[in-house]
Amino acid sequence: MSNDRHSDKPYPATGAWTPDQPVGDRLFHTFATDRPFSLEGGGSLRNVTIAYETWGTLNEDASNAILVCHAWTGDSHAAGRSGKGHSDNGWWDGLIGPGHAIDTNKFFVVCSNVLGGCQGSTGPSSLHPDDGKPYGLRFPVVTIRDMVRAQGHLADALGVKSWRAVIGGSMGGMQALEWAILFPDRVRALVAIATSIEASAQQIAWGSIGRRALLMDPAYNNGDYYDAEPDCGPWNGLSVARMIAQVTFRTDTRFNEKFGRKLVNKNFHSDGIDLFSQFDVEGYLGHHGDRLVRRFDANSYLYIGKAMDLHDVSRGRGSTELAMARIKAPTLTMSIDSDILYPAYQQEIIQQLLKNADPRNRHETVSSIEGHDGFLMETVAVGFHIAQFLAETD
Amino acid sequence: MSNDRHSDKPYPATGAWTPDQPVGDRLFHTFATDRPFSLEGGGSLRNVTIAYETWGTLNEDASNAILVCHAWTGDSHAAGRSGKGHSDNGWWDGLIGPGHAIDTNKFFVVCSNVLGGCQGSTGPSSLHPDDGKPYGLRFPVVTIRDMVRAQGHLADALGVKSWRAVIGGSMGGMQALEWAILFPDRVRALVAIATSIEASAQQIAWGSIGRRALLMDPAYNNGDYYDAEPDCGPWNGLSVARMIAQVTFRTDTRFNEKFGRKLVNKNFHSDGIDLFSQFDVEGYLGHHGDRLVRRFDANSYLYIGKAMDLHDVSRGRGSTELAMARIKAPTLTMSIDSDILYPAYQQEIIQQLLKNADPRNRHETVSSIEGHDGFLMETVAVGFHIAQFLAETD
Repeated sequence: MSNDRHSDKPYPATGAWTPDQPVGDRLFHTFATDRPFSLEGGGSLRNVTIAYETWGTLNEDASNAILVCHAWTGDSHAAGRSGKGHSDNGWWDGLIGPGHAIDTNKFFVVCSNVLGGCQGSTGPSSLHPDDGKPYGLRFPVVTIRDMVRAQGHLADALGVKSWRAVIGGSMGGMQALEWAILFPDRVRALVAIATSIEASAQQIAWGSIGRRALLMDPAYNNGDYYDAEPDCGPWNGLSVARMIAQVTFRTDTRFNEKFGRKLVNKNFHSDGIDLFSQFDVEGYLGHHGDRLVRRFDANSYLYIGKAMDLHDVSRGRGSTELAMARIKAPTLTMSIDSDILYPAYQQEIIQQLLKNADPRNRHETVSSIEGHDGFLMETVAVGFHIAQFLAETD
Repeated sequence: MSNDRHSDKPYPATGAWTPDQPVGDRLFHTFATDRPFSLEGGGSLRNVTIAYETWGTLNEDASNAILVCHAWTGDSHAAGRSGKGHSDNGWWDGLIGPGHAIDTNKFFVVCSNVLGGCQGSTGPSSLHPDDGKPYGLRFPVVTIRDMVRAQGHLADALGVKSWRAVIGGSMGGMQALEWAILFPDRVRALVAIATSIEASAQQIAWGSIGRRALLMDPAYNNGDYYDAEPDCGPWNGLSVARMIAQVTFRTDTRFNEKFGRKLVNKNFHSDGIDLFSQFDVEGYLGHHGDRLVRRFDANSYLYIGKAMDLHDVSRGRGSTELAMARIKAPTLTMSIDSDILYPAYQQEIIQQLLKNADPRNRHETVSSIEGHDGFLMETVAVGFHIAQFLAETD
């Protein structure tokens, strides 16, 4: 693929971005330098850095800031070109920009790499302040709420008292929901796409099987692979984990259209067949796994996956209903009708549980054969609904 | 589980049944002793043994024989109790028996372990005639057609010129279809449940990811693990592969009902949480993986999975339409409405492509929350439709 600038390089040692590499458009905010940042699961972190990017200009009363939250393997590069420090174009480049649905002529847009990530924010590939060596499995479990509370520190530093909107799909939608529940007065509009109030048993199943596959890779070495030579990391395990996810992100229909039953460089009758002959769809999954390992840290994959499994707005709040009753912001929920991983009923539940009686609350369904990934790919339809909702909540 | 008789034993060396273990209700037929059995993929096998079981009595003109075909990890023990040689009750015990839907007072029922299997039929765990060592990866690729042609040898040996019916679900349905296409005059009624005319790209994706996970297990040792000590086989890899399949066999709805978000022996707030804390659904998947490795050979899992990926009735027959036009038998197709792995449209296509204009052809849908496994679990509904169809085709 033309924007895969790393495809001809050897695998990096970890897949994680490190400060000795090109910074690209990253900015940084560090907090918890005086006292530790306490985490929901019981652990804590010192010297927490959050990498982020911004687009547009913050107005004088800091009222035009929109927070965009990324999904599992995303990062702060939501918009803009690929280039040094950014292996790909922004993951929502079609949505964020001058004149786009999230119009940077009007809004100051912020996207931060999540806590636990590997693109500049503190995560398992970061150096432990005690010994200067990567955390690895010493990194504490983080939750979606921890990610949001870390973003809260960033908002404070930016002078953003309340967000004009918090917007996200998939795990980004979990963060958006938690923003509106944790800080109801700091969110003036909420957009939650292809996401849920809690991870379902099936979602947990997919996540945990991927983790188990990754842990099986001998090169994972109990999470201590940061000194591995290039090409010697746990890429096989991470790739298998990614392949599992990749199938759940798409649809049977799309796969039939795109691949059917074509073989990679083979004809059954003229070439014969062996146990390892590949169909096109296997080549595609291998390619996607391969791309991920070049830009993502295996431990971040584990920790962020666990954070999604632990996602549950009801935890410690009495009930789901009580949790959702905290939301003040008008809320747009959005489904992709072919999504098999976050089925539409999960977003409808979010909408049904809102108690703010805001007339601007509404649910939209995007018709697409792309499945869960439709929230990234159907930029026209997704952008249309977001733009309309932003205008209504002006 | 009460019928899991092996649960307190160490893992077997291979998961495969071997002749030094209790034979149970197995019978055997061996062919290709004079000349090799040629396979569709180009390989061949000598001294092919097919393990099978029968229930009921073959009548004088051998007109009452029904062939029941098993799925991926099934075996010839379709009915009957667990006991020595059979770790579980028959996988269709509720359907096959005296007075049951497939009535053994009336029919002579046969089920054979497939070629490539590991419960007495020749497969990768069998000994190569050349050196008396397990085939392992030296075993040739087999296809569904090869499995059916091997069953053809068994039918000859039993004196069954034509089957009263050939019945199967999932991979069993692929065999049933191929029986009716390869040998149109030997099948007098066809029942194809939760199956397809060809493996879809998504099905291939799931299968191939499972295989890749299994191959990653260091204990797999390139397929050469038959001398491994008990507890040292590629059980971790096989278990992960099985877990992937297990999620595709069930449904989101069922998982929500059965597991929800319960943790195994943990409370998030009082116990804290770590990266390896498990949810109930993870424990369930682990249990299923664990059960499989006690009774199934990892190489058989690979070869049979590949056979399913290669399933395509059109191969070498001009087109799907021409292939399906060969079927003479009246055909009952059946869908489980919640099946995410073999969606209903795949069975509807089978029905639509029939060209025999038999008025008894029909499609039935079973309403169930069990997903693909509904073909095994909904014995009352599945049995009802089979019994009715058998009466109509009498």
